[in-house]
Amino acid sequence: MASTMIVVKVGGSAGIQYDLVCEDIATQVQAGRQVILVHGGSHEMDVISEKLGKPPRVLTSPQGYTSRYTDSETLDIFAMVYAGKMNTRIVERLQMRGVNAIGLSGIDGRLLEGPRKATVRAVENGHQIIVRDDYTGKVEKVNTALLRMLLEAGYTPVITPPACSTEGEAINVDGDRAAAMIASAMGARQLVILSNVPGLLRHFPDESTLIPHIRYAELEQSLTFAEGRMKKKVLGASEAIAGGVAQVVFTDARIAQPIQAALDGKGTVIEK
Amino acid sequence: MASTMIVVKVGGSAGIQYDLVCEDIATQVQAGRQVILVHGGSHEMDVISEKLGKPPRVLTSPQGYTSRYTDSETLDIFAMVYAGKMNTRIVERLQMRGVNAIGLSGIDGRLLEGPRKATVRAVENGHQIIVRDDYTGKVEKVNTALLRMLLEAGYTPVITPPACSTEGEAINVDGDRAAAMIASAMGARQLVILSNVPGLLRHFPDESTLIPHIRYAELEQSLTFAEGRMKKKVLGASEAIAGGVAQVVFTDARIAQPIQAALDGKGTVIEK
Repeated sequence: MASTMIVVKVGGSAGIQYDLVCEDIATQVQAGRQVILVHGGSHEMDVISEKLGKPPRVLTSPQGYTSRYTDSETLDIFAMVYAGKMNTRIVERLQMRGVNAIGLSGIDGRLLEGPRKATVRAVENGHQIIVRDDYTGKVEKVNTALLRMLLEAGYTPVITPPACSTEGEAINVDGDRAAAMIASAMGARQLVILSNVPGLLRHFPDESTLIPHIRYAELEQSLTFAEGRMKKKVLGASEAIAGGVAQVVFTDARIAQPIQAALDGKGTVIEK
Repeated sequence: MASTMIVVKVGGSAGIQYDLVCEDIATQVQAGRQVILVHGGSHEMDVISEKLGKPPRVLTSPQGYTSRYTDSETLDIFAMVYAGKMNTRIVERLQMRGVNAIGLSGIDGRLLEGPRKATVRAVENGHQIIVRDDYTGKVEKVNTALLRMLLEAGYTPVITPPACSTEGEAINVDGDRAAAMIASAMGARQLVILSNVPGLLRHFPDESTLIPHIRYAELEQSLTFAEGRMKKKVLGASEAIAGGVAQVVFTDARIAQPIQAALDGKGTVIEK
């Protein structure tokens, strides 16, 4: 089973063509492949947050990773956008194409579980600050029994943050790293990470500097030139391969058949 | 199995105490009962719609039933509020109380399926109008296999509209009537409908005119005095009993242990 299973993460940035992604998922599922889709929603989250008078605030860790400041009110909006609009509309696209998709957030059946961070360290204007009302954490456990049960019954899981804290609270977690955890926990051979760039670029945003192939051992070093959002994707790729996934591919979600392109080795292929 | 199963519908009106409802569900589940929870979100929907600059518009059918005008933009907000915020926060309340809840909208796995209405007739200012861009319909089929699989694996399903049209589109459906369909399709003995009133009132909003018991044969007649939202609850109750549910109880969701109160016969008990 594991050999025909693929985990696909599609980001939430502007420009991503969800119709093309869902069209390709339908093709893959109809060809007998088991697909688990994980999605984001960052662009829509920014738009709706602004409209609701709660503009996004980004925290930058001392190591240079960015994350969304998520107090309780932000988490309400996060649930609305990710688990509500984005998830429902992606499931709808798949249902309309004959795929029996089932949308789940990480709190459903404790699908994605991990500890909530008591405090978050961030750097603002050159000073370290400590944030205490942040509902964020890191996925440490995947409910693989639930996913296997659904896959075996013919459903295609469509998964989104938030995740579930150990205490049962809804928490914001990084989608790329959650997808990496799912791929390794499920024993998937491949993890495809789709976003609005063609792959890992040596000189962002110059697309002619795409790196077609990179070894696991070289990933650490690529963190020095991976820009903002790509940093976490590299981290996710690294964690997936450390967790036993044979291949991670970064590909462009703005093209037709993006998953097939990834399986054909287009984009940035990362292997041990 | 069916004899220990109960379907609970909790409305979305202002004043409903979701903490009390979830506390009681935890008690029922821990006592060995299988519970399926169906929820609404109308009050929150009105609040968020206003904030997003898309104020709610209510359609009144020639028969006097009211429903929300749901164009594509409204459905986005509907998915955000019902499947996003409301569903996530109810699942969270249950998870924090030790119930392994799993949130699903009706489009997930085609849980609640039915035809989308091609046109909706409504009365506005005394004139009949025909609405064509409405994404609404009626649940005709419940994916009982999915619910049974989840219940048998120990999960507590938390279900919300939207439902799934025959073509796979997300459509707005009435929550009370959806709960009635679920109860009859699952062979539940009881359907508990919780709202922000103590039950069916002969003279709304005078709570001293609560009708404690009503026969199925008298339901039709009660439509003459059931106000706005209660009309559809009476219709749902009628459909549930016609579908084989032994007892439907309307109870107050603003009190402690509302489900136990319903099982003890408090509120309005409807039987054949």
